[in-house]
Amino acid sequence: MDPVIERINTSFKRVKAIRYTQSLMGWDLETYMPPMGAEARGAVAAELSAMEQEAILSLGSLLDRAVERKDLTDVERGIVRVVGRELKFYRAIPQEVLKELSAVTSKASVVWREARKEADFSKFRPYLERIVDLEKTIAEKLGYSKHPYDALLDIYEEGLTVKDVDRIYSELLPASKQVLDKVRAEEKFPASHPLEEVKYEEGSMREVNEHLINLLGMPKEKFRIDVSAHPFTVGLSTGDVRITTRYEGRDFRSTMFSVIHECGHAIYELQLNSELEFTPVGGAASYSIHESQSRFWENVVGRSQEFTSLIYPYLRSKLQFLSGYDREEIYKYFNLVRPSLIRVDADEITYNFHTAIRYEIEKKLIAGDMDAQEIPAAWEELTEKYLGLRPRNDAEGALQDVHWSGGSFGYFPTYTLGNVIAATLGYKVPHLYERVMEGNFGPLKEFLKEKIHRWGSIYSPKELLRKALGVEYEPEYLVRYLQEKYL
Amino acid sequence: MDPVIERINTSFKRVKAIRYTQSLMGWDLETYMPPMGAEARGAVAAELSAMEQEAILSLGSLLDRAVERKDLTDVERGIVRVVGRELKFYRAIPQEVLKELSAVTSKASVVWREARKEADFSKFRPYLERIVDLEKTIAEKLGYSKHPYDALLDIYEEGLTVKDVDRIYSELLPASKQVLDKVRAEEKFPASHPLEEVKYEEGSMREVNEHLINLLGMPKEKFRIDVSAHPFTVGLSTGDVRITTRYEGRDFRSTMFSVIHECGHAIYELQLNSELEFTPVGGAASYSIHESQSRFWENVVGRSQEFTSLIYPYLRSKLQFLSGYDREEIYKYFNLVRPSLIRVDADEITYNFHTAIRYEIEKKLIAGDMDAQEIPAAWEELTEKYLGLRPRNDAEGALQDVHWSGGSFGYFPTYTLGNVIAATLGYKVPHLYERVMEGNFGPLKEFLKEKIHRWGSIYSPKELLRKALGVEYEPEYLVRYLQEKYL
Repeated sequence: MDPVIERINTSFKRVKAIRYTQSLMGWDLETYMPPMGAEARGAVAAELSAMEQEAILSLGSLLDRAVERKDLTDVERGIVRVVGRELKFYRAIPQEVLKELSAVTSKASVVWREARKEADFSKFRPYLERIVDLEKTIAEKLGYSKHPYDALLDIYEEGLTVKDVDRIYSELLPASKQVLDKVRAEEKFPASHPLEEVKYEEGSMREVNEHLINLLGMPKEKFRIDVSAHPFTVGLSTGDVRITTRYEGRDFRSTMFSVIHECGHAIYELQLNSELEFTPVGGAASYSIHESQSRFWENVVGRSQEFTSLIYPYLRSKLQFLSGYDREEIYKYFNLVRPSLIRVDADEITYNFHTAIRYEIEKKLIAGDMDAQEIPAAWEELTEKYLGLRPRNDAEGALQDVHWSGGSFGYFPTYTLGNVIAATLGYKVPHLYERVMEGNFGPLKEFLKEKIHRWGSIYSPKELLRKALGVEYEPEYLVRYLQEKYL
Repeated sequence: MDPVIERINTSFKRVKAIRYTQSLMGWDLETYMPPMGAEARGAVAAELSAMEQEAILSLGSLLDRAVERKDLTDVERGIVRVVGRELKFYRAIPQEVLKELSAVTSKASVVWREARKEADFSKFRPYLERIVDLEKTIAEKLGYSKHPYDALLDIYEEGLTVKDVDRIYSELLPASKQVLDKVRAEEKFPASHPLEEVKYEEGSMREVNEHLINLLGMPKEKFRIDVSAHPFTVGLSTGDVRITTRYEGRDFRSTMFSVIHECGHAIYELQLNSELEFTPVGGAASYSIHESQSRFWENVVGRSQEFTSLIYPYLRSKLQFLSGYDREEIYKYFNLVRPSLIRVDADEITYNFHTAIRYEIEKKLIAGDMDAQEIPAAWEELTEKYLGLRPRNDAEGALQDVHWSGGSFGYFPTYTLGNVIAATLGYKVPHLYERVMEGNFGPLKEFLKEKIHRWGSIYSPKELLRKALGVEYEPEYLVRYLQEKYL
């Protein structure tokens, strides 16, 4: 290996070690931490962030030498690219901006929670205004060629631009609308189902989830599941990946598909090349690539006819209340189609309208074409336009998501990109539904590992998709998937 | 506050943050970590240790200025003293020595586990020899005035010397022997009890432990209990303290007293002054002071007649198999007296003989008066002398404890010091047994907080004991306690 890159790798271990502890603290916070532990935890997290930033900035002179190197391998080039991105961020953004953002967002998160409870956007607005100002500053400091929002998109999805996102939505949304209108007119998929109201016993549901985990072949010695308020996955290492789910007590789809979704994330983390693990490229390629893995397993696999057939006998044996429902009914229950106000409850067809609402608003906020106070009205209008619904209050509207309170601008499009890539995978994975029908997930995981997982972030997401699947972000796959499934 | 001390405190936050994450990783490792997570965990831990050491060494120039300061408060002097001790260690011991110790002990821990399984000391011996050599080097580098072992004792118990320990054992052991002989001759306390063999159902035992935790008033929002192979306590912050226990399925004393023991440690951690929390003096005064808290609650409180009376009705109602046993029987079962080969199973009277065996051997090893190969014979001889027993093999002898494989030399006496201080507390806490009888533990905890806990490590352990209790390490309290209880 190139000696300069070698030194970068050695130094970068510190960054990885810090991130590892941050991930463990995050997991612990959501699962087992006693509530009064929060204050000290926050202080420790702040110290670690400062250390992380220092450790990255200390790589500056090495990186400056590395970019001059010739004849680098793909891995080495990947390392230069990834470290370059990290350094660019901390070199571009002044300390005070990051500190203020951190201070504002920690207050804003608390205020947002209260404001949502009271369905009162005006309470959250002053914080959001400050956050938007800081995000604008960040965009300016990072720089962009066409639209300031490009700078923020790039943080979450390397190389993604407003042009890309506009293109995707401009194809995806009208086609989705057609599918939606037809499904609703013909009532091929119901908008509600009695099983949504049926209560389950948590013990049995835990067994169902264990069964799913076994079925997907999650390795016991490297994987665990716990309970948290919101499901998530944390990959501490390729030998230690953890997911969570929650048990709401009724509508058993919810916990079940959250487990399949998080298993999708977990498979990615588990199948990263462990030799890259402590290097700069030993992480996921991007947020949308990560989301594509969870959506592939949750939707393309999990909500398919074949998967329903596969697990139906087990579900029927385990959940007494299913005795009156046949396989086809369960399939419909898994695939209800109902425009709704809450993104996280959305079905496959309407989901991307939700991200589009946020995207449209964020783009305007960052460009200075909209003020925070105009958000509720814009939200109503866009929801009406896309979903034919009107939020009754801000809790059902602009206050529903946590992202803005934490300063995440540019994130929402990665959800839709994830759906696009997941659908693409549905057409690229060989013999997909035959294997699903057999419950033979090994070859699917092997394909994903070979094409995507093992490469870590050696390649940018666009490069990786081109190499792996011969595509980039191509909404037509998702359109085709929705049409084939729902029409 | 003195401006130099203020700057030390600010910088020391980083050390504390690193230690916090190390503690959390330690807790996670023993409770929830998937087994294959160990390798990456080890790599992260090594990075963090290096960072911790760097962070301490970076305090050098500030500390050099701080020792010149006049008119410092007690807290400020404590900070200078504690940081001085930390710096002394890293300044004195060459990097290579610490690295080699770390490398040898990580291998030695694995080898020790195998050697113990096979009861074969010779397998472990070469590693132990290397560890002893490194410990000798550390003692030389740290320096001492009388005995090289003093340097190692001081690591765990500031200011403790061979002279102190010899004095303690020379009083404690003959007196304990007298008590032991009399108890055995008169059969006042039995050497075994049928309840040792009685199995319990884990669910009920968990409820018993929950009951004990409530009885001791452990705060739910700052405290949790989990299960691990070996019980331990970890204090992440004054708002987040966690204990573990284990369920062996029979002999219910074991899990019950481990919970009370760990609660004793936890109360100390919870009652540290939270304002000192992120400063150098925001930790326990010493290992023996910490152990005194657990031993106080486990033995002086937990194994008393009064505590037995207090919990007997509950135990009787919860554990069906107790129906044939009256309060007095349970008390005897809690206080069996039986010289045994395994330290961790030892009763209150014989426990200190076990630490003395290890102390005698360690002292000679470090002074160069004994070679590692002579250990098994010395062990047999000392066990015969102190306990009238002979180990049948090395697993029952020199291989039973983990400490040497991890490089802990100088630690064992702190267990006995802990017992000595716990017994002393038994005579110093006002109205102790009246309060225990009432189940009114608030005043006891308040006394311990006032006298010991809240001070953190502002004072050295000897100073703290003088200030708090007007004593130092005075074995006569433990002698008196054993005589009064057992004769």
